[in-house]
Amino acid sequence: MANSKYEYVKSFEQPDILLPNTWIVVRIDGRGFHKLSDYYAFKKPNDRRALDLMNAAAVEVMNDLPDLCIAYGISDEYSFVFHPSCELFERRNSKLVTTVVSSFTAHYIHQWNSYFSSTPLQPRYLPSFDGRAVIYPNTQILRDYMSWRQVDCHINNLYNTTFWTMVLQGGMNNTDAEQELKGTVSADKNEILFKRFGINYNNELEIYKKGSVVYRQYELQDPNPVQTSVDDDDGSGASSVVPGSKPSRSQQDKLRKLRRKARVVVDHVDIIKDEFWDRRPWILSNAPGKLPIEQ
Amino acid sequence: MANSKYEYVKSFEQPDILLPNTWIVVRIDGRGFHKLSDYYAFKKPNDRRALDLMNAAAVEVMNDLPDLCIAYGISDEYSFVFHPSCELFERRNSKLVTTVVSSFTAHYIHQWNSYFSSTPLQPRYLPSFDGRAVIYPNTQILRDYMSWRQVDCHINNLYNTTFWTMVLQGGMNNTDAEQELKGTVSADKNEILFKRFGINYNNELEIYKKGSVVYRQYELQDPNPVQTSVDDDDGSGASSVVPGSKPSRSQQDKLRKLRRKARVVVDHVDIIKDEFWDRRPWILSNAPGKLPIEQ
Amino acid sequence: MANSKYEYVKSFEQPDILLPNTWIVVRIDGRGFHKLSDYYAFKKPNDRRALDLMNAAAVEVMNDLPDLCIAYGISDEYSFVFHPSCELFERRNSKLVTTVVSSFTAHYIHQWNSYFSSTPLQPRYLPSFDGRAVIYPNTQILRDYMSWRQVDCHINNLYNTTFWTMVLQGGMNNTDAEQELKGTVSADKNEILFKRFGINYNNELEIYKKGSVVYRQYELQDPNPVQTSVDDDDGSGASSVVPGSKPSRSQQDKLRKLRRKARVVVDHVDIIKDEFWDRRPWILSNAPGKLPIEQ
Amino acid sequence: MANSKYEYVKSFEQPDILLPNTWIVVRIDGRGFHKLSDYYAFKKPNDRRALDLMNAAAVEVMNDLPDLCIAYGISDEYSFVFHPSCELFERRNSKLVTTVVSSFTAHYIHQWNSYFSSTPLQPRYLPSFDGRAVIYPNTQILRDYMSWRQVDCHINNLYNTTFWTMVLQGGMNNTDAEQELKGTVSADKNEILFKRFGINYNNELEIYKKGSVVYRQYELQDPNPVQTSVDDDDGSGASSVVPGSKPSRSQQDKLRKLRRKARVVVDHVDIIKDEFWDRRPWILSNAPGKLPIEQ
Repeated sequence: MANSKYEYVKSFEQPDILLPNTWIVVRIDGRGFHKLSDYYAFKKPNDRRALDLMNAAAVEVMNDLPDLCIAYGISDEYSFVFHPSCELFERRNSKLVTTVVSSFTAHYIHQWNSYFSSTPLQPRYLPSFDGRAVIYPNTQILRDYMSWRQVDCHINNLYNTTFWTMVLQGGMNNTDAEQELKGTVSADKNEILFKRFGINYNNELEIYKKGSVVYRQYELQDPNPVQTSVDDDDGSGASSVVPGSKPSRSQQDKLRKLRRKARVVVDHVDIIKDEFWDRRPWILSNAPGKLPIEQ
Repeated sequence: MANSKYEYVKSFEQPDILLPNTWIVVRIDGRGFHKLSDYYAFKKPNDRRALDLMNAAAVEVMNDLPDLCIAYGISDEYSFVFHPSCELFERRNSKLVTTVVSSFTAHYIHQWNSYFSSTPLQPRYLPSFDGRAVIYPNTQILRDYMSWRQVDCHINNLYNTTFWTMVLQGGMNNTDAEQELKGTVSADKNEILFKRFGINYNNELEIYKKGSVVYRQYELQDPNPVQTSVDDDDGSGASSVVPGSKPSRSQQDKLRKLRRKARVVVDHVDIIKDEFWDRRPWILSNAPGKLPIEQ
Repeated sequence: MANSKYEYVKSFEQPDILLPNTWIVVRIDGRGFHKLSDYYAFKKPNDRRALDLMNAAAVEVMNDLPDLCIAYGISDEYSFVFHPSCELFERRNSKLVTTVVSSFTAHYIHQWNSYFSSTPLQPRYLPSFDGRAVIYPNTQILRDYMSWRQVDCHINNLYNTTFWTMVLQGGMNNTDAEQELKGTVSADKNEILFKRFGINYNNELEIYKKGSVVYRQYELQDPNPVQTSVDDDDGSGASSVVPGSKPSRSQQDKLRKLRRKARVVVDHVDIIKDEFWDRRPWILSNAPGKLPIEQ
Repeated sequence: MANSKYEYVKSFEQPDILLPNTWIVVRIDGRGFHKLSDYYAFKKPNDRRALDLMNAAAVEVMNDLPDLCIAYGISDEYSFVFHPSCELFERRNSKLVTTVVSSFTAHYIHQWNSYFSSTPLQPRYLPSFDGRAVIYPNTQILRDYMSWRQVDCHINNLYNTTFWTMVLQGGMNNTDAEQELKGTVSADKNEILFKRFGINYNNELEIYKKGSVVYRQYELQDPNPVQTSVDDDDGSGASSVVPGSKPSRSQQDKLRKLRRKARVVVDHVDIIKDEFWDRRPWILSNAPGKLPIEQ
């Protein structure tokens, strides 16, 4: 065929399969959101509409891609987690990352008006996101990744809350506030908030302090079962992965169908301690749980 | 700091810098556009609105990313080309691909209503795109890549035009039409179109036959200059790349500013022969040309 | 400095760090050993001298590189295993693979005359080896890799033993023997050996049936301890890896020193069942055991 | 078959094909040669036997692997160059690097006694080499790589010659010599050599000043041909590579046979200027030249 003369260029495409039996995290970040949040007048230190829009887009990505186990978002970033047994797109790096990024972008743009009805999008300032995939070899490290993001959420939010309170309520200029906060620890910031402004940081909204966890809702498990094997498994590394037993396509399709039946929920809770994971064993096991009776 | 306990997870991020001094092509593809085009009732074999929307989004991506030299689109795919000297995002693969994909998606969704005013987007059927980057070591191979896509455009369009004419005007069912076309060559299809339906394929719209080329417009060069060095350079491989002379950040910024001044145009012309490239030497040289006098 | 003009070429070197916290297996294979074994008249189906030379070289590689946990060899191939916590050469792929391959080659060539005193090496037929690194995310999969190689050893050796007995003792030509063995299962081959040649395959040497396991010798552990946590740990995935606690350089050096004190031994035993690993927990834990009293 | 249960572990092997149509340089380096050269009492600043042994091993690697175009060595390092059209081992990175490293090591060890007859190898101090592959997208950059190594040779050799002359003839201790040379330029070192020791650096042996170039010998081309196309081609980037025309296996075999007929020679000449390459066009074109009449 006439085309064959040029088809050799396909040989330059290089495979990018992610290592099997590892957790895949696709983290996306808003591009130039600093400038963008000024342009669309996001509220400081947190704009509830912006976070709700992020979460709404994340929920839709979870609906689009039933292979996803969980997602976690703070500010203009979101981490989407695929299970070690995931075979979506044969685990091709580019395909997984771009699909998540594009699906997220599409929903974000499409729902913008529902959250920012008074500030319609301008073509020169369209929000967009970049992303990357990282693989983690076992569950402990995946848990540590999630903890890392939630600790970051806390650190950033405490700083931002203090900084913007000093500026907006305290009348300081940005430079002075920044200068005063340099080198302070958490206790210092808590004190500034409380002593100067009567603000108890603990009373701030959970969505700001904890970020947003997105997952499929099944019946919660008893947190203190007599038989503790589930807890053991969750903590023990890659135990939930049965190596070598790659699910067939029809099995994968069946699992996807089951997962689609679960409602995707948004929570603002601690994901560093074991409890969250122990009560929702389906997240790490990837075995769909029991649907709640009255959903 | 409290965070450090978990920060080790960053060590799992692996670098993905694309080889320096090579052409980078980011090709994006519509996800599930077969089903999508049915749902939104795209016209067959070509829906002009859908192509115009693709092109509008591509033009905006070129505006967003002045580092791009040229783009080429057919159907629901688009190839975006970065020059070998490009240092955008330090040539990180994921960053380049996701930025192109996300920017394209954002503009596609945002402009949908301008092209499909009668069929608004439904959340369950939001268009999205995946993508990948491929690198090509010299200009000849980049040219061959572009030729490959344009030959593909021709082959697909001739087939689709014939098939859908047989179905829509000839009243055949899909299976029979497919069966009859099996094994035919171009001449056969041209004859079917002409003898049975009085259609001269050559008179079809250029946008369908040639696809869409998107680039920055400067003053065209004389196609037959006495001094032929430009032609030589274009054909000679990586001649336009000066190895080792990585442009400084300020030089890059200056070039970006210059490129932003040029208007991005959409053309439907032959990009296989030399003429297109000879008359627009800035595309392969990456040196901004002379702005047209009355733009 | 004068050199800087060309030094940009260093930017083409791409990083090749292997994912942290994963097992690294470097498998090397003899290049063209089929031809080579004819040239140097290796005995069929197994040449004890050739295997002993392979093992001697492997022992020296283990001595050279105390970071290695274990090695396993069959025929002209050898697998060398680095622990998930290994930081040797910053886990650079090329560096690890080439070091193992080169060290192995050096010892193989250097000791050739001790094993093949009657057939000195000819420059045109020097033995050499290629190799590659593969990473495995947890201990279960590493164990499965080791099992895979030992099952392969069994399958190949039973075939080769039967084939060469049919040819050398049975007087068949190669083609006929090959033809008769096509489609046979293990039981068939055992029967051919026993009924026609009075050979009980079980009585073959362990080195031929089981391959060679090379590791550092410490005091064996009680196979049935009351406290069974060690067994659990070994089977539970990546439990022996403490993520995030990357050993410091001085800790690494100390561990290397400790490991150098252990004698490297060659065994021909089952490594598929748990017993081998349970009694030698130091192999998977990477914590040096107790040196035997009278070594 | 019994094996299949474990065979899934093969899925963890990841492809490592080097980008087509690029130059491949495999550079190998002696491991721990500083210590080794003390142990075997290499002469300072250059040990002719050690360099001759390196060159002898490199010649044998060129003989083993007819796909190699050229090699260049200084001190304990050697760079081996494969042509952009090379399809050896399907361009698999690990396979190419380890084969070069292992073949080189084998010959180095095997020929040791011919060059160091008075200092036989000790098992605890066996020389070995590590290596890595780097790809370069066009001929200009490959030439710059070669120039980089030769400039390095010059810089190092001038330094070492001066340093060791100050120590061995001048009676300085190492620290004082090092201290005095800190910050000096080439002219300073030339002056030290000449004024203090009566040594004209230009009269040093070419093998020390220029390093060693290893290639296949054909009839040299006229350096100033009337028809200059060869010169143009050599300078023009990837001109010698015909993209898309991947040679068939039988063509590759034929070329290998032709190349085997040429004698591999060792030269100590300038490879930075064009002349070397212009007179030996077969090195960059990969088309075997005309065999010299009286070889």
